[in-house]
Amino acid sequence: MALENITQNKVFGGWHKQYLHDSEVLNCRMQFAIYLPPQAAPSAPVPVLYWLSGLTCTDQNFMQKSGAFRMAAKLGLAIVAMDTSPRGEDVADDDGYDLGQGAGFYLNATEFPWSRHYQMYDYVTQELPNLIQQHFPVSSVRSISGHSMGGHGALTIGLKNPTLYRSISAFSPITHPTQCPWGQKAFAAYLGSDRTTWLQYDTCELIKRVDKHVPVLVDQGESDDFLEEQLKPDSLVAVSAPEKGELNVRLQPGYDHSYFFIASFIDEHLQFHAKHMTE
Amino acid sequence: MALENITQNKVFGGWHKQYLHDSEVLNCRMQFAIYLPPQAAPSAPVPVLYWLSGLTCTDQNFMQKSGAFRMAAKLGLAIVAMDTSPRGEDVADDDGYDLGQGAGFYLNATEFPWSRHYQMYDYVTQELPNLIQQHFPVSSVRSISGHSMGGHGALTIGLKNPTLYRSISAFSPITHPTQCPWGQKAFAAYLGSDRTTWLQYDTCELIKRVDKHVPVLVDQGESDDFLEEQLKPDSLVAVSAPEKGELNVRLQPGYDHSYFFIASFIDEHLQFHAKHMTE
Repeated sequence: MALENITQNKVFGGWHKQYLHDSEVLNCRMQFAIYLPPQAAPSAPVPVLYWLSGLTCTDQNFMQKSGAFRMAAKLGLAIVAMDTSPRGEDVADDDGYDLGQGAGFYLNATEFPWSRHYQMYDYVTQELPNLIQQHFPVSSVRSISGHSMGGHGALTIGLKNPTLYRSISAFSPITHPTQCPWGQKAFAAYLGSDRTTWLQYDTCELIKRVDKHVPVLVDQGESDDFLEEQLKPDSLVAVSAPEKGELNVRLQPGYDHSYFFIASFIDEHLQFHAKHMTE
Repeated sequence: MALENITQNKVFGGWHKQYLHDSEVLNCRMQFAIYLPPQAAPSAPVPVLYWLSGLTCTDQNFMQKSGAFRMAAKLGLAIVAMDTSPRGEDVADDDGYDLGQGAGFYLNATEFPWSRHYQMYDYVTQELPNLIQQHFPVSSVRSISGHSMGGHGALTIGLKNPTLYRSISAFSPITHPTQCPWGQKAFAAYLGSDRTTWLQYDTCELIKRVDKHVPVLVDQGESDDFLEEQLKPDSLVAVSAPEKGELNVRLQPGYDHSYFFIASFIDEHLQFHAKHMTE
């Protein structure tokens, strides 16, 4: 599949690059960004961290605001950041910021009019990684992380695919989408009224069902405006079971929902993933 | 003078905060941002780095994209980032991105219609630092840095005020504005047709005239699209004289004009300033 390179910037000795491509799964043109650390070479493929952003974001929020490249260059990790939904004039949308374009929720929609394009689960787990491995000097070793809606995406995708990802982390994730307004609105639209179909995309439900999971690190700011109504870290703590795997939920006093919070702890997340990707 | 706090975010244990205030010098409402490291306290005032941004920027470009807070927190430095010009409906403007609002060039305009508001030199050197010292736990120890048009600002202001600033640094600065299109357009508008008045705001001219200057660090990407026509680092190297003070101009292969470049070297700039501010 052809990739169109649209930008490239040297950063911390490596390269940030943006690409466009035709997505078969999403049935539209898509944009993503990759950071390749200085170590990446065809003779020395590097592991990849997939980053899933939150509501309204594109591939650029993380790349421009997280301050992640210094540590990624030090550890020799590639980072891929994708868009948060299919995009385009013929892609179904909604007036709300929390449904439609910019709000794909990293699931496969089954309902009209969403199902034609909104297949982000397959895009994240299959199409995009295949493309990345085909075109860049990266290994098959992957981990996954994200923020807010993207934290929900990282947790659900990582829990459902323990053979594809070595570790999972999340900042301020929507942990229990079947029980919060953002999740209920999106799941009703994308998945329909049968709530049993929703459970496959709910972290708190998934973690109850799995016997084992890869290591998980979650950071949540205690001054996050969305904490109690939307994010519900307590629900995640309540279903954790040490015998199933490491699940470290950290509450960080004073921090909010912004990229200033992510920047403050991204180094620790990258070190956590690097440890598990090089084991 | 009253400050109106509009945002605050905890980051790396310190605080990023934005404020609005009425500027007497600029004759309009102005916005700035400050980073206060965790060490800052009334009993332990910290030194301040003033950051001047480039064309079209606000107080937020540096704060969101530079990745500076990790090192600032480690070193115990406050950082102040201001807007790049006066702003508002009754403030003179131009259709170009390189003149008027967003393009103040850190000088005092003498010509109609600009002189009523465009007094950025006085704002940066007097009004804003006085306000900062009055309202925040900072010491009188200051250094100055900036990017592109803001690199020009940092260099000219620092060279003209060696008792106010301990050190100067710049990324991709406009070094010789009287000899490049950006500078010639802005200086003709703000300062008029008598080119002798322009020389007081031209780094290459100033550095020839001073006997001594505080230490200067400049980083310039070799793949910067504006290198030859607008920035002219060779002109700065040509007028440097080691006996006047440290002037380190570094060319960085592969780097461009973006914040990805700034992020890659900001730690070294902060360490350079911290060394001179704590001597």
